[in-house]
Amino acid sequence: DRALLARAITLVESSSKTRRDEAREILEALAPKAGGSLRVGVSGSPGAGKSTFIETLGMRLLRAGKRVAVLAVDPSSAVTRGSILGDKTRMERLSREPNCFIRPSPSAGALGGVTRKSRESIVLLEAAGYDVTLVETVGVGQNEIAVRSMVDFFLLLVAPGGGDELQGVKKGVVEIADAIAVNKSDGDLKAAADRARQEYANALHYLAPRSRSWAPRVFQCSAVEDEGVADIWENVLEFELNAKADGSFERRRREQAIEWTLGVVEDELLREFRENDVVQNALPVIKERARKGDLLPGAAAEELLRLFRDAR
Amino acid sequence: DRALLARAITLVESSSKTRRDEAREILEALAPKAGGSLRVGVSGSPGAGKSTFIETLGMRLLRAGKRVAVLAVDPSSAVTRGSILGDKTRMERLSREPNCFIRPSPSAGALGGVTRKSRESIVLLEAAGYDVTLVETVGVGQNEIAVRSMVDFFLLLVAPGGGDELQGVKKGVVEIADAIAVNKSDGDLKAAADRARQEYANALHYLAPRSRSWAPRVFQCSAVEDEGVADIWENVLEFELNAKADGSFERRRREQAIEWTLGVVEDELLREFRENDVVQNALPVIKERARKGDLLPGAAAEELLRLFRDAR
Repeated sequence: DRALLARAITLVESSSKTRRDEAREILEALAPKAGGSLRVGVSGSPGAGKSTFIETLGMRLLRAGKRVAVLAVDPSSAVTRGSILGDKTRMERLSREPNCFIRPSPSAGALGGVTRKSRESIVLLEAAGYDVTLVETVGVGQNEIAVRSMVDFFLLLVAPGGGDELQGVKKGVVEIADAIAVNKSDGDLKAAADRARQEYANALHYLAPRSRSWAPRVFQCSAVEDEGVADIWENVLEFELNAKADGSFERRRREQAIEWTLGVVEDELLREFRENDVVQNALPVIKERARKGDLLPGAAAEELLRLFRDAR
Repeated sequence: DRALLARAITLVESSSKTRRDEAREILEALAPKAGGSLRVGVSGSPGAGKSTFIETLGMRLLRAGKRVAVLAVDPSSAVTRGSILGDKTRMERLSREPNCFIRPSPSAGALGGVTRKSRESIVLLEAAGYDVTLVETVGVGQNEIAVRSMVDFFLLLVAPGGGDELQGVKKGVVEIADAIAVNKSDGDLKAAADRARQEYANALHYLAPRSRSWAPRVFQCSAVEDEGVADIWENVLEFELNAKADGSFERRRREQAIEWTLGVVEDELLREFRENDVVQNALPVIKERARKGDLLPGAAAEELLRLFRDAR
């Protein structure tokens, strides 16, 4: 039931304490039913063609009889408030499919919150029986690391650029990729895509391999023309088979459970401080003093911490 | 004394408790001597030409008799480990100037930590008598927001692109800019720069103005040819004059003191948890249980929090 699922996700995304408690109960009840989907992160800079790629891949999976969930995760949007052009109507074909469920990124609240909410949404999607969860994120460093911590396979999508492909590409992001795909390998950009694939392949060579059991490859594809997308999915399935055979699939999920736990703890510690009565009463005074120019941040922080410690 | 200054900054950047305490004492002693520089943030995507811009601007300021500090701030590098190509030798001319002090981003530790360390470094630089502090950051959303919270003037540097300039440009980032400069307005890119300037000017029109007292403008410049850079600096000085006259300069610094305070508090709360003995003893057990597959993140988080609360 899609409406029920959407309501449950809204509950998980809520920042009200009562609703969060309700969400926790639902999550604990559903936890045994979760874990069944293959979770694939698709990340890339704006303009890499993420939506088109996901639409093409998603339609392929639907045709193969899979139920597909698409989850956008953008922790940075909490501070940057989305792109100027706004979200165009995206993934038009997918959004009309009954076996596909698309959910935009939770936007409200603190950074850590978005990650927690997305992880919990995955639990709900899996309990609802989706076979594949595609997690889309826009590449800004932070976001990839967050998404990597909730997926089984992390695909980095790049567009052919103006020759110096690796300018600004972050080591840490390439290192967490299980595969890299150079998209837009069509028309005028074909030759540039060839070059980009070569450059990324070289980069992968001189970076330390993340795992001994899997060698990430660089693919070339055209999501618009549905060229090469099937090969990439083959690679994902090969990865799944391998990782399940050698135990690394389960191991990765368990490591993620630890990160998830610590993330929840950190969220909670900060929430506890922000919602503490003594802190809430002291803050306006601190702010007033700051506005009068009578505030040394170090000393004021110590004072707030002392008040909070005495109060609890 | 540059060597002494560098040592003091290293102290501020340290994560050892003893050194941090030492740093705090120094900072409190120096706080009355701080605040004297004009703090200018320069942000932009990789390839926007930030280093060249800062070098050209910095050389101009030095010729005008100013002492210039350049501080790189990249909170995201803590997770993304810098760019693949590494840092080329940057700002070669500036780095040879006796009246210029250049400091790369603190890299270690948690996200919030980088912001705090950079703010404290600004205190040290100002106490050492620098007139202008240029704070460079690579544009990934998060970083700009962090840098905006420590500077008086925030300049967004962009490169002319392939036509759809605003693709992926974040609302929140454009809204915090006190000026936008389209760099690389030279040679083949001149016409593209003209178009980009027009597009950004339009975007500024339909975004809500951040302040009634200052209307951000869009500039065009070529840092390589030192064209238009002087005009941008004129704009910064005009802003300073205006903002000091109407009180918004001081007001902004005081708001920043509040953010700074809360940042220190959040860092401290998380540090306290991580360094707590009971937590440190419990973590290996939690991790072991996770590795055995016997861990529900929500329940495990609650357990850790309960242990931590009982311990303190």
